[in-house]
Parts: sequence; C-alpha cells; structure tokens
Amino acid sequence: MPAKSIIAARWVIPVQPRQHVLENHALVIENVRIVDILPTSDARSKYPDTPVTERPTHAVLPGFINAHTHAAMSLFRGMADDVPLMDWLNNHIWPAEAKWVGQEFMRDGVELAIAEMLLSGTTCFNDMYFFPNVVANIAQEMGIRAHVGLIVMDFPTAWADSPEAYFDKGLHVHDEVRSLSRVGTTLAPHAPYTVSDAPLEQVRTYADELNIPIHMHVHETSTEVSDSVAQSGVRPLARLNQLGLLNPRMMAVHMTQLTDEEITLCAEQGISVVHCPESNLKLASGQCRVADLLAAGANVCLGTDSAASNNDLDMLGEMQTAALMAKVTAQNAQALPAWQALEMATINGAIALNCQDDIGSLEIGKSADLIAIDLDHISTQPVYDPVSQIVYSASREQITDVWVEGIQRVKYKQLVNVDVDDLLQTARRWGERLTTS
Amino acid sequence: MPAKSIIAARWVIPVQPRQHVLENHALVIENVRIVDILPTSDARSKYPDTPVTERPTHAVLPGFINAHTHAAMSLFRGMADDVPLMDWLNNHIWPAEAKWVGQEFMRDGVELAIAEMLLSGTTCFNDMYFFPNVVANIAQEMGIRAHVGLIVMDFPTAWADSPEAYFDKGLHVHDEVRSLSRVGTTLAPHAPYTVSDAPLEQVRTYADELNIPIHMHVHETSTEVSDSVAQSGVRPLARLNQLGLLNPRMMAVHMTQLTDEEITLCAEQGISVVHCPESNLKLASGQCRVADLLAAGANVCLGTDSAASNNDLDMLGEMQTAALMAKVTAQNAQALPAWQALEMATINGAIALNCQDDIGSLEIGKSADLIAIDLDHISTQPVYDPVSQIVYSASREQITDVWVEGIQRVKYKQLVNVDVDDLLQTARRWGERLTTS
Repeated sequence: MPAKSIIAARWVIPVQPRQHVLENHALVIENVRIVDILPTSDARSKYPDTPVTERPTHAVLPGFINAHTHAAMSLFRGMADDVPLMDWLNNHIWPAEAKWVGQEFMRDGVELAIAEMLLSGTTCFNDMYFFPNVVANIAQEMGIRAHVGLIVMDFPTAWADSPEAYFDKGLHVHDEVRSLSRVGTTLAPHAPYTVSDAPLEQVRTYADELNIPIHMHVHETSTEVSDSVAQSGVRPLARLNQLGLLNPRMMAVHMTQLTDEEITLCAEQGISVVHCPESNLKLASGQCRVADLLAAGANVCLGTDSAASNNDLDMLGEMQTAALMAKVTAQNAQALPAWQALEMATINGAIALNCQDDIGSLEIGKSADLIAIDLDHISTQPVYDPVSQIVYSASREQITDVWVEGIQRVKYKQLVNVDVDDLLQTARRWGERLTTS
Repeated sequence: MPAKSIIAARWVIPVQPRQHVLENHALVIENVRIVDILPTSDARSKYPDTPVTERPTHAVLPGFINAHTHAAMSLFRGMADDVPLMDWLNNHIWPAEAKWVGQEFMRDGVELAIAEMLLSGTTCFNDMYFFPNVVANIAQEMGIRAHVGLIVMDFPTAWADSPEAYFDKGLHVHDEVRSLSRVGTTLAPHAPYTVSDAPLEQVRTYADELNIPIHMHVHETSTEVSDSVAQSGVRPLARLNQLGLLNPRMMAVHMTQLTDEEITLCAEQGISVVHCPESNLKLASGQCRVADLLAAGANVCLGTDSAASNNDLDMLGEMQTAALMAKVTAQNAQALPAWQALEMATINGAIALNCQDDIGSLEIGKSADLIAIDLDHISTQPVYDPVSQIVYSASREQITDVWVEGIQRVKYKQLVNVDVDDLLQTARRWGERLTTS
C-alpha cells in the first residue's frame, strides 16, 4: 500500500458535518488516516504524484459500524426460524452451543461472519460471544476493526463456569488484545435475567477502571420486563439504574420496551441504545421507539444481532429496515429520515464505542475506514439524493470497495487475501455436521 | 431457444405442493411449459439428448409476481422521501406527474422498471398507471408478463378527463392487448377517495363482462377511513361492499386499517389483499394484519408499490420485510413463516390475478416462469432450509437466471437483449431534467 493515496468519488458523504454531500470530491489517505478532503480537480493539482483510485459513479462514506452481533453464530444461520426468543434460546440455540462451541467452531464461524461483514461494508463490529480472544485475533488477521465482549453470566458455559472465572478470563483477554491495533474490549454482562447484582456491580467497577464500554441485552422483550417486576418489583432498566450502570459507557441492546420516563432517563444518563430491528421483528420481540429516543437526545446506533436471528449481517439492509420501521412505530413518515439512519449506522456506533474521535465519519485526522457504493445500477437510478438512494434502494452487492485504516480489504467486490471458496466449503461442512446431529 | 430443455438445480422449490423442497431435481421445459419434474439423475437418462442448464448451487423456484406497482414512477425514485401519503401525493407526485407524464416518460420509466424487475426475479407484474397501452407493449417486447390497469378516476389526468373517457380508452386498450400473449388487463379504479359511486358501479359491470380483476387502493391510511366515515357515514370497505365490489375479482391493495369483522368479510367474500409492507412503512400508513388475514382464509399476495415509495422494486426484499413485519404485527414469532411468505410472492399473486392455472408454481402443465437463486454465497451458507435462506438471508444479486414462458430473459445476472448502459444513461438524463425543473 502506498504511503499516500487518493480516492476520488462522484459523491463523498462524510456524515459529519451532518447532511452534507460533497459532489466530485476526493479523500487523501496517508498511512492510516484521512489527511485531506477536497474537490477532485483540486486534489489532482495539489497532489500530482499521488495515485488516484477512481470511483466515478460511486458514493464514498464511512464504513458501517455493526454495534451488536454474535459473529460465530453465522454457522447457525437458518437453523431455527419462526420461534420466539426464549423458546429459540432454551430449545435450539443454547443446546447447539453447548454441543458445538469450541475453538474450531469459533474460528470457522467468525471467519465466515467477518468475510460477510467486510463484503457488505462493515468496517467495525461489536461482538458478544464465547472465546473473545479467538474473535480478536481473527479480526486483527482479517483486517476488520472489532470490539470483543468480556462476557459475564451467572451460569457455566464453554467459556467459563462462574462469575469469578468469567472476570478472570475476561481481564486476561483484555491484556492480551492490547497489542492488537484494531481491537478493543467491552465488559459484556449478557442480560438482566442471566446476571445477578453482585457480578453487575463488578462490571461497573471494571468498566470504569479499564475505561471500556458495557455491552448488554436490555429490555429485549415484554416477558423479560414482567418477569423482573414479578421477581424484584422493578423493571430491569430501573434495576440497572440502581446499580449505577446507566451511564455513557452503557450500550443497551434492543430496548423494545420503553416508557416515556425511561426514554427521558436514557437521554439524561447518556446511555447508548443499540437498535436491532430485524432481530426484534423476527423474534417478535417488539418495536424500539427509535424516533422518540433520538428526539429526546439519546444516542441510538445500529446492529444486526446474529445471523441466526436476522438472518444476515447486512448493515445496509438493517439501515433500510430501521428507517422504514421507525416511521410506522412513530406513526410519522418524517421519522428517521435517511441521513439520520446513516448516522445510526456510522457515527452513532462510534460514539457508543467511545471511538468517535477515530472513526464513524470522514474527517481530516480520522482513520480511513470507508466504503464505496456504486449507484450506477438499474435499481438506484435516477439519483436525486445519494443518501436516500443508499438507505432506501441500494443493495449490498453495490458495495464495491472497503478500506480499514487505509488498507483495502475489498476491491471490486472481491475480498483481498481471503479464500472465499475455502470459507464456503467449511461452512457447508458445518451445515452437514449440524444437520446430521 | 431449443424446443425442449432441462434445468437441473440443487433444490427445486415448486411452491405447490406446499412446503416441499426437491433436492437435486430437474425441470423439463418444452416450448413454453413445464412438462416434467423429476430427480436430475432420472432426467439425464429419460431425456438423453436434451440440453441441460446446470445450476448446481442454486434453488429454482417460480418467478415472483409483483401484485401492485406503478412501473413508470421509477423515474421519481428518491425524489420525495420522508413525507406522509397525502402530502406526498398532493405536493410532490401529482404535480410532477402533471408536468412530466407523457409517452416518452412512460416508455423510459417502464423500461427501467421492467429491467429492474427482471433482474430481481419478477416474471409478472400488476401495474396501475397512465398509458396502460404503452406499458403493455413494452412488457411484451421485453418478455415479462404484465397485467395493466384500465384506470378510472373522477378527475382529469394526462390519460383521460372524465370517467366516461377513462372507460372508453380503457376498453380500447383491453381490445388492443388481446393479441399480446403475456399481457392481461384489470379494471383499476384508483381509490375510494378518487372514484365516486357511479363509476364504481360501472367498474363492477365491466369487470364481470370482461372477466378481469379489479385493482384498487383500499384502506391505505386511517385518514382515508375517517374521511369516508365523516363524508358518508361508512368505512370505504363497507361502501365497496354495498356497491357489490367485494368479490373474488377484487385485489384490494394496502388494507392497513382492518377490524376483526372486516378481516372475516375479506375471507368470506373471497377478495385478495395485496400487501405492500415497505410502502406502508415508508409512508407511515400502518401495518396490514397479514397473519390474521391468512388465518381467516383470505388470499394475501405481495407488491412493491412504486419505486417512489419503497424505493426499489425488489420482491425478495419485500418478502423479507413482510415475513419480519408480520411477526411483530401479530406479536407472534411463528406468524408468516418463510414458506408462507414465498407463497404470497408467487402462487397467491397468481390466484389474485386469476392466473393460478398458468403461473405461480412449478407444476407440470404450467408456464415455465421461473428463476434461479445461487445460495453459494458468504451470506447464505450454511444452508439448513433453502426457503428460509431465500426469505431471510438472500439478496437480489444472487438471482442469476430468469425465464418467462421458457425463454431466458436473464442469464448469469445479465439481461438478455437489453442495453442496460442505454437505460442507465436515459435514467440519468431524466434525473437531471427533473432536478433542474
């Protein structure tokens, strides 16, 4: 990779400043960073010897930040559809995980997921699963940015057998991954119904000490909320508030069950909400009040959840679903306009992960994490507004190029340095194993 | 095209019988029809001299039937987003139509739309727009099946200036298109709020005489319903019932506002409901009670509406949205399982159009309207259930081949005999014209 390079596009969509579209503009990348953004004609004269990558019918924008997934579960894609959450977890997913999850499953599942994410324009993902060390190393190898969850649960799994063990292993992973340039960590207590108060208090302490986010499923279903009230007299969000966990570190995933007061609380406490519309729809969990949260000033970002309850890791599709759903949830066709949906998929995820100084928008000084989308397609012409086109019409196959830290990871729709045939063969083999088991 | 040919696939999904998946099966096509369906190994020995098209990692299934669109409006794609229905119609769409719609607009818009539909697996579409004769001729030329609406409205438009004129021109078009093998007609009164009682009675009469469906927007928004009650004391559906229009010819589009009694009425009267989830979401119109309608025994099919309120004509994406939405609308994760969503996009559309003897499923004697989808992709492996994969994970770029009446219209993702660059250039020119106006 040359030390300096130019990417020239029909449209540059920086995301910040908001609602800007820069026509016929170029980004100048030096080492890992964006060092200039200017009209392409000016770039050619200002940097005459710098090689130019021409993307003349494309929009270039920040890479997507998938703020919630369980990457390795791609091997469970389509294995158990059309069942509600607790049935799905108790009778399908948890038994399959108990049987299959180990180093090999993790490696194969994570590689498949990262390949899919890179090809569909995701440059950073926030994972919650067993063996976060495995996830971290594969992410670094494959060139995608990742935040891995140091998971905590009350009960034993393949990863650890007690809260103490979860913390011990988690802190170990946190130390191990310091040397990986594109990897961060989060404290990841699974959910209010799987983690009791004492470990949650420790989570708060460690998150503060290590200065990392907290990544947790919260208020995913009405049953979760009513069970909590029955058991402890309070809703899970109130319980988390009492434990001091509602602060800007908190990334609360799903949040489909929110009262007006809780929405105000989210905004006041500065938590981030991670919206996963396709998962919420597929599991009939509910509809997150995204427009209301944004209007109250809360940070709302976007995630796909796992490929077993979606059933893909496609952030472009997720963005479209979010933009469409929010309008009917709010009963207002002006809710969550395209530019705001794009913010959710980019800068808001960066804010949630406390990386907004480094990624999430195309600005001088930020890391060159970006993608090109070709709008010269039958389904995305004519173009009146490229942001609208991206959110409401484009499909993942139109994503042609992906750069992470200025290194091209997808070129002309092909993964660089990844043997896709090999990945597909491995996936097929897992499919046969899990089918015959 | 050879008189007889074989298509051999990894999976054949016939749709009827329902919930069947035939692994490693072949279809034998002779002239326009399916003449045999059998295991591929048997096909090779039974028809040794017949050329075989191998699709070894693909599912082959009936082509999608887009049961409601306004094809030419593709030229308005993305022109006016994030506004509610009546504002969108009154302040954006109707003025633009008044300014631009004519023969040139129709030809260019319809060609663009049909190209997009063919590439994304639609083999039959049901249109409602001005100049249905233009739509019919282009559809026949481009090799897609179409039903064109003989539109009726109270007020003048580019097509006609009074109900009498609408009927006169419509009947003329009906006669003209008899000679077009792949084209049918419908009577298409726009909506309850744009067509008064007298023309609606004539619609009923003509539909019976000509033996064609009735294609109408019904109960699209709560405002439509409350306005009707304010003006006439009855909801639009009740008014249509009084006029004798609720019968098996009726294709009622949208139907987002339905009581339990109205759902029972739909099933009892044998009407078809055309569900357009992405349009309903985008315009914040409401949520059609799809699962309740199906449970009551009503026929529910699927449409994209126009590219100006979607914003694409992608039936695969529409099917996914329908399958996801229905679960949260019904608050039941088992609602609208994948196989049923596929029926909505295929056989149910054929039933609605009264073509179920000819299209909508892969059966011996039916027309060879079919598509191949390649599931050997990073985002659709491993495969446990190909129908689930198609509905919940696949994306339109995985549609590799499309046949209508046994003639291949898309081969290896390329339109046959269509100059796509020319279409794109024409679309771009229209984009510039409409932008500077």
